[in-house]
Amino acid sequence: MYRAYPCVRGEAGRFASDTHAVVEEAAFTLNVNGRNVMAAMVSPVDLEDFIVGYLFTEEIIKGPGEIESIKIEKSVASVLTTNPFRVTGRKRVILSGCGGSAAGIDPKKLKPIESDLILPYDAITDCIREVMASDLHRLIGGIHSVGLAGPEGMIRRAEDIGRHNAFDRVIGYALRNGIDRSRTFAVSSGRISSETVRKCLVANIPVIASRGASTSLALDIAEWAGLCVIGFVRGEKMNIYTRPWRVEGAGDVAIER
Amino acid sequence: MYRAYPCVRGEAGRFASDTHAVVEEAAFTLNVNGRNVMAAMVSPVDLEDFIVGYLFTEEIIKGPGEIESIKIEKSVASVLTTNPFRVTGRKRVILSGCGGSAAGIDPKKLKPIESDLILPYDAITDCIREVMASDLHRLIGGIHSVGLAGPEGMIRRAEDIGRHNAFDRVIGYALRNGIDRSRTFAVSSGRISSETVRKCLVANIPVIASRGASTSLALDIAEWAGLCVIGFVRGEKMNIYTRPWRVEGAGDVAIER
Repeated sequence: MYRAYPCVRGEAGRFASDTHAVVEEAAFTLNVNGRNVMAAMVSPVDLEDFIVGYLFTEEIIKGPGEIESIKIEKSVASVLTTNPFRVTGRKRVILSGCGGSAAGIDPKKLKPIESDLILPYDAITDCIREVMASDLHRLIGGIHSVGLAGPEGMIRRAEDIGRHNAFDRVIGYALRNGIDRSRTFAVSSGRISSETVRKCLVANIPVIASRGASTSLALDIAEWAGLCVIGFVRGEKMNIYTRPWRVEGAGDVAIER
Repeated sequence: MYRAYPCVRGEAGRFASDTHAVVEEAAFTLNVNGRNVMAAMVSPVDLEDFIVGYLFTEEIIKGPGEIESIKIEKSVASVLTTNPFRVTGRKRVILSGCGGSAAGIDPKKLKPIESDLILPYDAITDCIREVMASDLHRLIGGIHSVGLAGPEGMIRRAEDIGRHNAFDRVIGYALRNGIDRSRTFAVSSGRISSETVRKCLVANIPVIASRGASTSLALDIAEWAGLCVIGFVRGEKMNIYTRPWRVEGAGDVAIER
């Protein structure tokens, strides 16, 4: 469910190479009676309970007795049911935990980052502090806070019930105000997943930093496309997983793969 | 972006009526050139930046210059672009922050809860403590932990990169093992949103409790369908938003609406 990932650990501007446990994120496809019913990002372990629960809560089956067989091959599960003509007819809606993007990610179709931005250490820790200090976040919880910042500090902060919505909000602000995104970085109160990495790549934002963790798939895509991912920014500490040269002073520390 | 919601506050088994700020969650539909391109759950404020950012990160527009007009009426935004024949062709994937359910919610199609379950106070606080004590959560972050429990304690715990996947996992476990779900409650490390409430309703799980916040829409649906929602379970404290009689001793405290 996780794997060791090499990184550069920073603390108060000093750096050392290290490894850190990163949670696995994998694409998963579900076919029912030969027809694709969903694709999701999941933790790729023990999928039977998930499949049965999903089919039930999506009202594709009334109970486990309607399942004839489940066959799982790598990231594809094929289910046969006793009600072969039942289909999922309801409108599909993007969820409040996420919102925004619901696009599949094909890294080869993404343009690598083009930017020579190098960030001062303090710009990153200061902006994370600022994004975490959201009044709404403190008052009510349950809201995601995302910022778009530059070397001189915060440019725009946005909050939304959907993490990806908040990303779209700051990117939309940058677009509408003609901001050079190759000179910016994104900061987030929440986890860095493949989809938020994808949004940064589409928008050519060269660095993403978060107080939280990153997923394995987010790091694989970021590594491929040249995005700098910084996780666990807490106080004066941070883990730089990819492109450490974008953080002032961290470029000389080797990441061993 | 939030509203006051009445609740019963519990602390170490003592109760008082109060109100608490709850974050707003609303359904939002986006039409581009007369065609529906998405429906999402959002924070219903300042939507222009979100719309422009979404259209850009989904590669429906190359920049804000391709937008002719944005018209927003209540929860529906209609956009006209200068590239009227561009469509979103990529595969839609459910996101890692959520996973699982992507169904729209029509409360009228949901069956109200049928259960006479009343829970001891300690069963709730103990199970939240247990679900938060996940080793993986502590080690790597970035993972959601959900449990299905009964009055006597935890029945099954599941972790997944997608919050809703973790719910589907424990529901799937209950189905496969013939557990009477009307005698169970769900505990979660994360926010309670409309979709997790919907999963409990489909599975006839009468109580959902979380360390985190609940959204306004989650509470509205729960209130309608008779689900007991308990938020901010921390140490000996909790906020009971709906059906307080399901918590031992809280049934006599008035919720003023």
